[in-house]
Amino acid sequence: MDLVAFGEGLIQLTPDRNQRLEQAGAFVPHVGGAELNVAVGASRLGLKTAWVSKLSDTPLGRMIRNKAREHGVETKDICWTDSGRTGLYFLELGATPRNTSVMYDRSHSAFSTIRKNDLDWDAVLSGAKCLLITGITPAVSPEAADAARLAIQTARQKGCLVCMDLNYRAKLWSVARARQTLGAMVPDVDILVTTAGDTETVLGITAANDERLAEDLEQRYGCGIVAVTHREGSTVWKNRWSALVRSGGVTMKSRVYEVDIVDQVGRGDAFVAGLLAGYLPGKDLGRGLDYGVAFSALKHSIPGDLNWCDAADVERLLAGPAPGVSR
Amino acid sequence: MDLVAFGEGLIQLTPDRNQRLEQAGAFVPHVGGAELNVAVGASRLGLKTAWVSKLSDTPLGRMIRNKAREHGVETKDICWTDSGRTGLYFLELGATPRNTSVMYDRSHSAFSTIRKNDLDWDAVLSGAKCLLITGITPAVSPEAADAARLAIQTARQKGCLVCMDLNYRAKLWSVARARQTLGAMVPDVDILVTTAGDTETVLGITAANDERLAEDLEQRYGCGIVAVTHREGSTVWKNRWSALVRSGGVTMKSRVYEVDIVDQVGRGDAFVAGLLAGYLPGKDLGRGLDYGVAFSALKHSIPGDLNWCDAADVERLLAGPAPGVSR
Amino acid sequence: MDLVAFGEGLIQLTPDRNQRLEQAGAFVPHVGGAELNVAVGASRLGLKTAWVSKLSDTPLGRMIRNKAREHGVETKDICWTDSGRTGLYFLELGATPRNTSVMYDRSHSAFSTIRKNDLDWDAVLSGAKCLLITGITPAVSPEAADAARLAIQTARQKGCLVCMDLNYRAKLWSVARARQTLGAMVPDVDILVTTAGDTETVLGITAANDERLAEDLEQRYGCGIVAVTHREGSTVWKNRWSALVRSGGVTMKSRVYEVDIVDQVGRGDAFVAGLLAGYLPGKDLGRGLDYGVAFSALKHSIPGDLNWCDAADVERLLAGPAPGVSR
Amino acid sequence: MDLVAFGEGLIQLTPDRNQRLEQAGAFVPHVGGAELNVAVGASRLGLKTAWVSKLSDTPLGRMIRNKAREHGVETKDICWTDSGRTGLYFLELGATPRNTSVMYDRSHSAFSTIRKNDLDWDAVLSGAKCLLITGITPAVSPEAADAARLAIQTARQKGCLVCMDLNYRAKLWSVARARQTLGAMVPDVDILVTTAGDTETVLGITAANDERLAEDLEQRYGCGIVAVTHREGSTVWKNRWSALVRSGGVTMKSRVYEVDIVDQVGRGDAFVAGLLAGYLPGKDLGRGLDYGVAFSALKHSIPGDLNWCDAADVERLLAGPAPGVSR
Amino acid sequence: MDLVAFGEGLIQLTPDRNQRLEQAGAFVPHVGGAELNVAVGASRLGLKTAWVSKLSDTPLGRMIRNKAREHGVETKDICWTDSGRTGLYFLELGATPRNTSVMYDRSHSAFSTIRKNDLDWDAVLSGAKCLLITGITPAVSPEAADAARLAIQTARQKGCLVCMDLNYRAKLWSVARARQTLGAMVPDVDILVTTAGDTETVLGITAANDERLAEDLEQRYGCGIVAVTHREGSTVWKNRWSALVRSGGVTMKSRVYEVDIVDQVGRGDAFVAGLLAGYLPGKDLGRGLDYGVAFSALKHSIPGDLNWCDAADVERLLAGPAPGVSR
Amino acid sequence: MDLVAFGEGLIQLTPDRNQRLEQAGAFVPHVGGAELNVAVGASRLGLKTAWVSKLSDTPLGRMIRNKAREHGVETKDICWTDSGRTGLYFLELGATPRNTSVMYDRSHSAFSTIRKNDLDWDAVLSGAKCLLITGITPAVSPEAADAARLAIQTARQKGCLVCMDLNYRAKLWSVARARQTLGAMVPDVDILVTTAGDTETVLGITAANDERLAEDLEQRYGCGIVAVTHREGSTVWKNRWSALVRSGGVTMKSRVYEVDIVDQVGRGDAFVAGLLAGYLPGKDLGRGLDYGVAFSALKHSIPGDLNWCDAADVERLLAGPAPGVSR
Repeated sequence: MDLVAFGEGLIQLTPDRNQRLEQAGAFVPHVGGAELNVAVGASRLGLKTAWVSKLSDTPLGRMIRNKAREHGVETKDICWTDSGRTGLYFLELGATPRNTSVMYDRSHSAFSTIRKNDLDWDAVLSGAKCLLITGITPAVSPEAADAARLAIQTARQKGCLVCMDLNYRAKLWSVARARQTLGAMVPDVDILVTTAGDTETVLGITAANDERLAEDLEQRYGCGIVAVTHREGSTVWKNRWSALVRSGGVTMKSRVYEVDIVDQVGRGDAFVAGLLAGYLPGKDLGRGLDYGVAFSALKHSIPGDLNWCDAADVERLLAGPAPGVSR
Repeated sequence: MDLVAFGEGLIQLTPDRNQRLEQAGAFVPHVGGAELNVAVGASRLGLKTAWVSKLSDTPLGRMIRNKAREHGVETKDICWTDSGRTGLYFLELGATPRNTSVMYDRSHSAFSTIRKNDLDWDAVLSGAKCLLITGITPAVSPEAADAARLAIQTARQKGCLVCMDLNYRAKLWSVARARQTLGAMVPDVDILVTTAGDTETVLGITAANDERLAEDLEQRYGCGIVAVTHREGSTVWKNRWSALVRSGGVTMKSRVYEVDIVDQVGRGDAFVAGLLAGYLPGKDLGRGLDYGVAFSALKHSIPGDLNWCDAADVERLLAGPAPGVSR
Repeated sequence: MDLVAFGEGLIQLTPDRNQRLEQAGAFVPHVGGAELNVAVGASRLGLKTAWVSKLSDTPLGRMIRNKAREHGVETKDICWTDSGRTGLYFLELGATPRNTSVMYDRSHSAFSTIRKNDLDWDAVLSGAKCLLITGITPAVSPEAADAARLAIQTARQKGCLVCMDLNYRAKLWSVARARQTLGAMVPDVDILVTTAGDTETVLGITAANDERLAEDLEQRYGCGIVAVTHREGSTVWKNRWSALVRSGGVTMKSRVYEVDIVDQVGRGDAFVAGLLAGYLPGKDLGRGLDYGVAFSALKHSIPGDLNWCDAADVERLLAGPAPGVSR
Repeated sequence: MDLVAFGEGLIQLTPDRNQRLEQAGAFVPHVGGAELNVAVGASRLGLKTAWVSKLSDTPLGRMIRNKAREHGVETKDICWTDSGRTGLYFLELGATPRNTSVMYDRSHSAFSTIRKNDLDWDAVLSGAKCLLITGITPAVSPEAADAARLAIQTARQKGCLVCMDLNYRAKLWSVARARQTLGAMVPDVDILVTTAGDTETVLGITAANDERLAEDLEQRYGCGIVAVTHREGSTVWKNRWSALVRSGGVTMKSRVYEVDIVDQVGRGDAFVAGLLAGYLPGKDLGRGLDYGVAFSALKHSIPGDLNWCDAADVERLLAGPAPGVSR
Repeated sequence: MDLVAFGEGLIQLTPDRNQRLEQAGAFVPHVGGAELNVAVGASRLGLKTAWVSKLSDTPLGRMIRNKAREHGVETKDICWTDSGRTGLYFLELGATPRNTSVMYDRSHSAFSTIRKNDLDWDAVLSGAKCLLITGITPAVSPEAADAARLAIQTARQKGCLVCMDLNYRAKLWSVARARQTLGAMVPDVDILVTTAGDTETVLGITAANDERLAEDLEQRYGCGIVAVTHREGSTVWKNRWSALVRSGGVTMKSRVYEVDIVDQVGRGDAFVAGLLAGYLPGKDLGRGLDYGVAFSALKHSIPGDLNWCDAADVERLLAGPAPGVSR
Repeated sequence: MDLVAFGEGLIQLTPDRNQRLEQAGAFVPHVGGAELNVAVGASRLGLKTAWVSKLSDTPLGRMIRNKAREHGVETKDICWTDSGRTGLYFLELGATPRNTSVMYDRSHSAFSTIRKNDLDWDAVLSGAKCLLITGITPAVSPEAADAARLAIQTARQKGCLVCMDLNYRAKLWSVARARQTLGAMVPDVDILVTTAGDTETVLGITAANDERLAEDLEQRYGCGIVAVTHREGSTVWKNRWSALVRSGGVTMKSRVYEVDIVDQVGRGDAFVAGLLAGYLPGKDLGRGLDYGVAFSALKHSIPGDLNWCDAADVERLLAGPAPGVSR
């Protein structure tokens, strides 16, 4: 297995574009969850990928598992339970000056009841090249944090890389708890993905710019790779999107993409998927950066959490902008 | 106020007709909940009606409140909270031999955290003619059962009639708990609505037929009015529907309706709404029975929990079947 | 031209199946109107057909004209106006015991302002074999009745057959006005299409059965052909459908079709279309009856006013029931 | 009652985004009407609000009433009638260079038949702080203008503020009629809301800029408050939006909002709602301006006439732009 | 692997229920194909299942592969190609007397270009317990027939059971070609599934009833198991459904199910899936028959080719009819 | 006939906006094809127009014919066949940086089997003022190229103008084949419509700018009129759009339009339609240019291949930008 992602699977319910939740006449379901989004993206880009989680054995739980399988993600190690709900979240798409907004309904989920030994981590990570976790899992419950810690520890023992996306979620826990919990995990991380905002919130670190931030993170935590994504723009339907990576004292900056935004949810996850799919096969970090930014730029154009693009789409984009309609 | 209904409000999410949940491409939201369904129906039939409940102060909670208001139901006494979820349930419409099926996702709801004094029952029931509760509320949580008991007790002190629909929900509690809790409530009920099945489950009473059952219930519990609804038919899209009422030792049986079934959810609630709207104004129980059965027969033809018919529709149906298209 | 149909074109707005109007989340538009439905059906069955009317020069008026053209109906003689609305009607599909119901919003339409000389009847009917009118047009306005009378008169002068479907619409006028107006027109009709109910209402004639009714009509009015359609069944989703024709003292009865009902609106119009398309080419009345009943039986299976079947579908049905799925 | 709004309620029918009317495959219904939009917005922002009107007693008329109730607007004083239609309008959403366009189908509506004494103005305005009318009502029919005049006169007698949005509608009446009718009403207005364009058309007043315009209006008509909204931008999907208010010789200018446009219909009405909801409680005109512009800026992001935002949304926007997705 | 299914994957495009193709406003895509339907059903019922085929490497080809994966079907041995189309078929749902009808658009598909050695049959069938083919594959092209023959031959060499569903498709080939091709294959079949109609068409065998037919087939071809499904009923929305199996000279008849029909496409495939899933694990043919008929009865209730039920649904149905809504 | 357009008709299938094909939950069908798009546009703008083609006699073939008729295009000379498919294409709408993309499924279509004498060109072009062909038809098959050549030749013999849109389609043929085939056709063209890109690809001609290009084309090929359209802009949702025409040594440049892009497919065809509809009646090339650019600018705002605008829309746009909503 190239990649094992561990985290919660959720069902996103979205009203038809730009209706408010209170006004909704129909909800479109999308399967997602940060780590699952990474797994699906990495699988579509060619990595052999597994996703492990805990799901309730109901049609909704199975809908999540099915969607992972649809994209070729291995799901055999999922822990199934008859208790606990399926986590939901409601997404309200915005338009300037009204922001896109998420309303979670994920408490008491099956995943939140996970115990660290619900999964046989030795087996799950056997032969894995990389473990992907995010800062969301420890926020779900103290026991989920325990499971994340055990996963990291097992990975390190096996020589499996640990990739972590910091992903602070203000609606799930306090800054204080996040700092204490995640701060203690970062030193064990090989590939750290973050943003200026999350770094300030979770690690209390600010810097003049993203380059300085990456240097600082590399020095403090000794992460092999630090990646920082960067969003610019003040409107809801249009952004500029880029990233940089730092490793071994060297920083590389990506191309900056203009993006039209259909649905930005999952762009960070798409970056991680692209970074790993570009980097892991040949340990070429430049290719990792290119893939990460291009794949996440493409994500903005697709409704739902998941990025339905693939390596051919990324290569086409990296080769330069195509003129108009392709036919 | 003619009627005060107390219970939980839920949002029903249904895939397009006959898709299974696991297969769903879109969910249509409908607002419902047994007592709210009764309140909406009674309001549409002309009663001055209020609905009291506890809701989370979110777009989904407000969607429920809004829908009650849309039908003219008074909602000012609802208790709002910032904690607790909005109860959901997923409805899968069937086709013979696959049954229509409900999957609840209502645990940890705002309503389940209700405390008996969250509502000022004296104020809520001030001037009310009738209180409507169902066997669902006590099943939600022991504290909700306490609130239901206090509501009944307050109603009786004020000379307000108590109407109860027995409504056993196997997915919410055990037969043993239901028997103990509801069995103790029935003696305080003035108008008892039930079915042969629920009576057997909840009260342990069986009878040769619905007439005998009504006699038995009248004798044992001294309810002023006993109403029993009756469904016949072995297919999902077609039933025969009728009811009887017993009061003061006299039983009246209704006309039997052939019904095509678009969505049978809420048919029992529509019966209660019709019964009360027909009976309460002039204490004419025959009119109550006619209204109850006709209004609930009409419910089968309408998607969602709520019955969008009104008194004119009921009168038209009671006047006899109309030929073909009305134009 | 084989057939010239004269009447109003309307836009039907229907909520998704079985939603009530008050509840509607979306309306599907269908173009219709009794005479237009006949014209479209006849054109699809192979007749050279024109439809004449008066329409407002708005997107909605053009939508009606476009739909006629889509089915190959000649529309060049339509009278266009800048004043007057486009007639609408709202259709609520039922389920036993709630009837399918029509709510008209057609008053003040462009068509209702028609004057008898808005159309150059000599040109319109030049070379036409048959004129089709219905009892709806005279109900729209006295001036529309004048136009219908002038159309009939011109047709007779030119040796063009006059076919009339009695079509009483209680929501448009009183029985008294209908009797006076339509009763005076029937003697000029060559092909009269009616039902037992409409005949009683409009002409005050009742009979023991449809055979007797046809005999009676033939004798009283001297119509060359009398056709009577017949619906049986007490539920909204299922009927039995048949017809008979009488001509020259001979009565022929059709096969009786079991029909599942998706949308029965336009079934009578489909009968007229089939009758004319079967009869006119070779003056074979038996073929007219077969085509009429089969084409209208098929109509029940199709949403909207129009019958999207064609001669091949009719021939297939007349050849006998096909087993299951055709593939 | 904080606010009583008087005007016509309409049903908007819109094809799926950017389909033309002639092309429409489905129409989505939205309830609206300028004064109703203000009432709904004000109610959502916390004012105790009533809407009075005349409606036809049909499913469509009830759909309008229901929608007002859904948002907590008091509807008990509506005058119901069995004659007259429900006003409709068809909305075609544009994209540069094709403008968004409205096609009215509101003639012969129940509201157009209103007589000034159909409503008991003394009762309707009893205890009301503010009456809201717009320049649309007098355009509907001379009798509706009479009713508007009587409403204003009654309000003044009772010490109830009169707020008027000038709202010229070229498809309803001529400039000449508008000038004569509305010009005579403005002197009785306490709070006048307008735009540079409407002011020029209806009052024949032009000025170098909006500040001068407000000064001029204050001087000529003695209105206590003059508010002028201002739209900039030459494309259909993007605008800049702001306003100013003038009172007691002092002018305040609002922040300018960049807006992405989902549906701009009802933005002016949202401004009035925000202005009144911000101003009336504490007579703080600065807060009125802030609320008015913020609430109307938010309106552009929501499909339909109504603004489904509330005070919390406004406060969040006034507190500054939030970064990206809130979760 | 318990089961390896070999055949073409198609995308079904269906207009909203009961619209005709010519009238369609939107097409809903469903993935299907007889052998894929069996594979999905068997996988959902618990068998370890693979599906092998040839697909074009396009979004539509991947959509088919993805859907198989979504249901846990192994797809690693699919042969991908850059030439050839994805087979489509258009489904028109009927209503009595208009039959449900299929219009194929599958010619020139990638699958029709399959060569017998495109798949490494030794590897594909390594360790497989059962091979499933149908009479459709040989009809697609002579080369596909070659591939089917090689698959059967390889299976027999490996001691893998061969299951064949006769499935005559009149729109794909002539009776003469079918008889010659399929007739030569049947002697190599271990488990033969058919209907009276297909047996007569393809094998020229008729019998007084299904029992006699099974006896005859057993004697002539020496198949270990013969299964015959049986449909009764003359309307489109309602059927009676049953089957029998014969093995070792013993015949077992199933329960007869009343079925409401949402979409009957794939019912035969569901029978095969249930038969194999019931039979293969413990070689209990009675259980195979029960599972086959119950699973296929349930299929009628679900839109699309695939049966989204599972073993729990089957067990629930076999345990007896459930009363009303389950909640 | 003012215009006869010859080419293939296709059905476009598009997922709901911005869903990818692989992800599609529903496909919306639009009828199109370059020459049909021109015919429909020209007919809507007032030209008497015919479209000739070869179609399969199936519901999909009839859907194409019907759509042409819906817009008033004469279709009587279409050649119908029982063999061959209906050409399809799947359209994926993009968002920067993902381009809008077309996936053809048009091979083996009925049209690709056309033979040059399938149409009676003498009759088809009898009395026609202008023949419209594009570079797509010769790309479909060598026989279609033959038919195009015969059409051109017949037109020239009859003194009918030949208009050709160069329209290179890389997915249909190679540059080499296109150059050879189209290069030989251009000298026979009276009105040549192209872009800088297509001219370079097909004719191997580049120029410093569009003015020079038009001069060059006029000199080399002696076309009476050369028109060059011009798109600027690097994002998917926003472009600048203009054109120039050259005739008799004089070049005219159009106004430049900012366009919001709903669906740009068919913009070039809309230009041709506008050019011909503006030019042909009075031979006023300036009007042709104005109409061409305005009509195609408007096309961007409408979903599907066809431009549902008309002459009134064009005149309104030419008269200057309208302010906001028209009501």
